[in-house]
Amino acid sequence: MDLSSLKYNEAGLIPAIIQDADTGVVLMMAYMNQASLEKTLATGETWFWSRSRKVFWHKGETSGNIQRVKEVFYDCDSDTLLFKVEQQGAACHEGYRTCFHYRLEPDGTVAIVGEKLFDPEQVYGKRT
Amino acid sequence: MDLSSLKYNEAGLIPAIIQDADTGVVLMMAYMNQASLEKTLATGETWFWSRSRKVFWHKGETSGNIQRVKEVFYDCDSDTLLFKVEQQGAACHEGYRTCFHYRLEPDGTVAIVGEKLFDPEQVYGKRT
Repeated sequence: MDLSSLKYNEAGLIPAIIQDADTGVVLMMAYMNQASLEKTLATGETWFWSRSRKVFWHKGETSGNIQRVKEVFYDCDSDTLLFKVEQQGAACHEGYRTCFHYRLEPDGTVAIVGEKLFDPEQVYGKRT
Repeated sequence: MDLSSLKYNEAGLIPAIIQDADTGVVLMMAYMNQASLEKTLATGETWFWSRSRKVFWHKGETSGNIQRVKEVFYDCDSDTLLFKVEQQGAACHEGYRTCFHYRLEPDGTVAIVGEKLFDPEQVYGKRT
């Protein structure tokens, strides 16, 4: 398959859903451009494109919490990717296993679901 | 929680990942604006915003394959939603349970994974 035939948005990006291959937990969503997708496929670890910093972002480079790619899917519109990965440690920079740890409750309040696996300050340093 | 505090993109949209609440299978991804999110929360069934047709899109309205919302999550950046749903029938308009039925193989070929549950022509009519 020619990776240029996927549908990238006007910024050249395609959303990538990252799912735990073992448990099925959806860990995070981030964006890839074609070059970061190629790096992901070549290395077997996830590489994204940081929209805010405008740089390649090798997931886990700072924290060690890398994602080893087990399977790669795309959808019927060819505009979204799904990666099943083996996640080291926690996916979320806030220290939780999944970035989706905020649950919107029927009464409109928010519950934090899941256990904090690491202290972000210990891993990334204090943000000043 | 004030739904306007979520981060919508420049088109006023936020991506919504839809996951089977029972099996953990990621079924599809589509986009919501704040109004479609409000309709989803009020009705307990998913409503999206169709970027191509520029209309609200009640998932399953034509096919009967509606999605009943069980849990709603958002991520640490407040820019992606995750819905755990009870999916009636198939999520994909091509007749597959999940829209992510194209698997990119290590040799660059594409495998179709999963069983076709309905014939799109029978449900949506012949597209001419």
